[in-house]
Amino acid sequence: MTTREDDFITSVEDDLAEGRLTAASRTLAGLSPVDVIDVLERLGRRDRAVLYRLLPKDVALEVFEGLDPVLQGELVHALQDDEVARLFMDLDPDDRVPLLDELPAKVAHRLLRGLPQHERDMTSAVLGYPQRSIGRRMSPEYATTSPGTTVGDTLQRIRLRLDDAETIYTVPVVDHSRRLVGVVSLRDVLRASPGDTIESVMNEPFAVLATADAELAARECADRKLLALPVTDNESRLVGILTVDDALSILEEAESEDAARSGGAEPLRRPYLATPITAVVRARVVWLLALAVGASLTVQVLGVFEETLERMVVLSLFVPLLIGTGGNTGNQAATTITRALALDDVRPRDVLRVLGREVRVGLLLGTLLGALGLAVVGLLYGTDIGLVVGLTLVAVCTLAASVGGVMPIVARKLRVDPAVFSNPFITTFIDATGLIVYFLIARAVLGI
Amino acid sequence: MTTREDDFITSVEDDLAEGRLTAASRTLAGLSPVDVIDVLERLGRRDRAVLYRLLPKDVALEVFEGLDPVLQGELVHALQDDEVARLFMDLDPDDRVPLLDELPAKVAHRLLRGLPQHERDMTSAVLGYPQRSIGRRMSPEYATTSPGTTVGDTLQRIRLRLDDAETIYTVPVVDHSRRLVGVVSLRDVLRASPGDTIESVMNEPFAVLATADAELAARECADRKLLALPVTDNESRLVGILTVDDALSILEEAESEDAARSGGAEPLRRPYLATPITAVVRARVVWLLALAVGASLTVQVLGVFEETLERMVVLSLFVPLLIGTGGNTGNQAATTITRALALDDVRPRDVLRVLGREVRVGLLLGTLLGALGLAVVGLLYGTDIGLVVGLTLVAVCTLAASVGGVMPIVARKLRVDPAVFSNPFITTFIDATGLIVYFLIARAVLGI
Repeated sequence: MTTREDDFITSVEDDLAEGRLTAASRTLAGLSPVDVIDVLERLGRRDRAVLYRLLPKDVALEVFEGLDPVLQGELVHALQDDEVARLFMDLDPDDRVPLLDELPAKVAHRLLRGLPQHERDMTSAVLGYPQRSIGRRMSPEYATTSPGTTVGDTLQRIRLRLDDAETIYTVPVVDHSRRLVGVVSLRDVLRASPGDTIESVMNEPFAVLATADAELAARECADRKLLALPVTDNESRLVGILTVDDALSILEEAESEDAARSGGAEPLRRPYLATPITAVVRARVVWLLALAVGASLTVQVLGVFEETLERMVVLSLFVPLLIGTGGNTGNQAATTITRALALDDVRPRDVLRVLGREVRVGLLLGTLLGALGLAVVGLLYGTDIGLVVGLTLVAVCTLAASVGGVMPIVARKLRVDPAVFSNPFITTFIDATGLIVYFLIARAVLGI
Repeated sequence: MTTREDDFITSVEDDLAEGRLTAASRTLAGLSPVDVIDVLERLGRRDRAVLYRLLPKDVALEVFEGLDPVLQGELVHALQDDEVARLFMDLDPDDRVPLLDELPAKVAHRLLRGLPQHERDMTSAVLGYPQRSIGRRMSPEYATTSPGTTVGDTLQRIRLRLDDAETIYTVPVVDHSRRLVGVVSLRDVLRASPGDTIESVMNEPFAVLATADAELAARECADRKLLALPVTDNESRLVGILTVDDALSILEEAESEDAARSGGAEPLRRPYLATPITAVVRARVVWLLALAVGASLTVQVLGVFEETLERMVVLSLFVPLLIGTGGNTGNQAATTITRALALDDVRPRDVLRVLGREVRVGLLLGTLLGALGLAVVGLLYGTDIGLVVGLTLVAVCTLAASVGGVMPIVARKLRVDPAVFSNPFITTFIDATGLIVYFLIARAVLGI
């Protein structure tokens, strides 16, 4: 984002705030679609609809395509039926599906019925795949060739698809029954002589199943540095193609989801400034309540040890420090393993390897912190208390690192998002168990 | 990752563990370079070097290119000088630079000196840009054309660069002094007639400065759904090109960094299983110590209120619950805003808008939780204690959401990674201030 674009945005926002619609629309005309999207994503629902309707027709479609599906769905309600029908017709088949998911069933049906047969078939094909599968995100518009076709003829076929194919730079090679037998890049096509057969220049295909998880498919596309990834059905028949820009959007959503969940909230599904306050509260309140209920365990644990606390109030001074350090150690491990799982660096069957490593890491960290705690607390509050704090740090750090490391893997095995079990959950768990460890050690060392 | 590949990996790892090197190398021969990389990234340093040397020559280069620079640097130490020189020569100029950063200066110099003049010049150009700038990650190998050149001639020029250009699908258009004046896609070139000039088919260029932050440049490439982004110097002269696959790696690194920092640790810079335990401890211990020092504030705060605690030990029961809930609320806000900053949905100048929103969100959440707390705690421990807990929840949630929302923006303004100021830092801060709020409210309500 350059300063010049930033100035434009400020100026549009000022104009809007003060009702100068003509001025706003004039400024908007000087912006590229990407920047218009930036502006729209910073506005409330009503202002966004107003501004959208001020856009020139040719820019409007490109802007609409670039908006989050939730925002598209909101805009649809502010437009006339025939405008919506035209917009919907102009969208790519793979862009229609996420929008349909946001609309009431009645509206969705009407829009689908309004499409010409061919477009409706392509859209229905994508709609048929399960939620979160790559089949829902792939594009059914691509150029293909076959092994026996010559390079020259293939180039001709590519030229015919220049306007509608999602990409022409990666061309899947299929046999007579549409089974994927290879992939050829436009670069390889240009390098070969026109008379060569595709068979002699194509590469082994790497493909994903249409029912595969969208995030995993996108990660494969990224890891293999592919511009496009063919998508097939169970019988290896080509059904679509995932382009790298769509893979990028999928990964971006997945990472926003992980970030939100590891912070103990549901993803907002909209840019932050475009999300109403009530929606922000909704995304956070359920988690916060669940965690508070979990945290009420700590009240009960402390209640059990209330007598110990009454005898030695000094013990209560170290409660936040000890459970805080446990929570931090647990978070460190949980975050590392959640990310490693997302990148496929660690797999569910590595659970024992991870446990072994995290026990050692936790023990090392706990020993370092514990020694420090023993020295400092021992000096200020006496050796006994120092010993209690030091020993608790060793135990809590080891426990926290192991639990933090293993939890995301357990979550993955239970088919729950590993990020769900990550930071806040671990913190709450460590708070309660850490307290038990603390008071048991205190009772043993202090003989109370 | 398919099950078949997973089986291969298990089999290679078993062979290695039991010293069956020939068997391991045979299995390895059946794997694609991407899968070999997967295997190597799961091994310790020595096993990795052994396995790497078992690879056939032609696979070895591709595997080496795909490894993290830190792992490349380690491998270099295990190979003979002439092998290293050959590998280094075969790398792309933009892949040489991250490796050089990992090597001792002496080795780096020797390798650079060993390059032919032209290759050395290209590598030095990339090396001249500041760390973390896109200049260091761009490729200096690209095809160009000029506005007056015909489409036919441009196609000829592209054909000449098929083997060495990083991409041929996006072609920057430069004038006689190498100033970037447009961009043309191979798709547009194929669509036009051979006699058309490039000027008639090219698009407005969107470019980034070579000194721009690498993450921001990569995000622009992703947001604009570009396959390649031209990189220019201060005078708009073309100096390189950023391809989408390199943009993806940059974003992936940035997200790993954010994830690690928001979990309160430094990024590992290596795949988890390939990182020695001591390196994991190093990545975590400094943060953990810093946070523990911060947390020692809570000991002091509680010390100040020790007398209040002695009179009413029951107050200590709610300490973990209250500071835990505050920490969770703060984390939710911090994670949301950190992610919004990364996606450019929120900018530093939005700080007051964010503050206004988060105060309202925090107040709403606090009121909900506080009402619940008042009811439940009031029933179990009496109205007075219920009132103290309820009021504290309102105050702490509001404080936590505001601090959590604003901190990442402050960090960005101070040019610190927003994720640094995120979760663990906020938790520690909220722990200490939350306690003060709690005891002040307790004193006021209970009259002690």
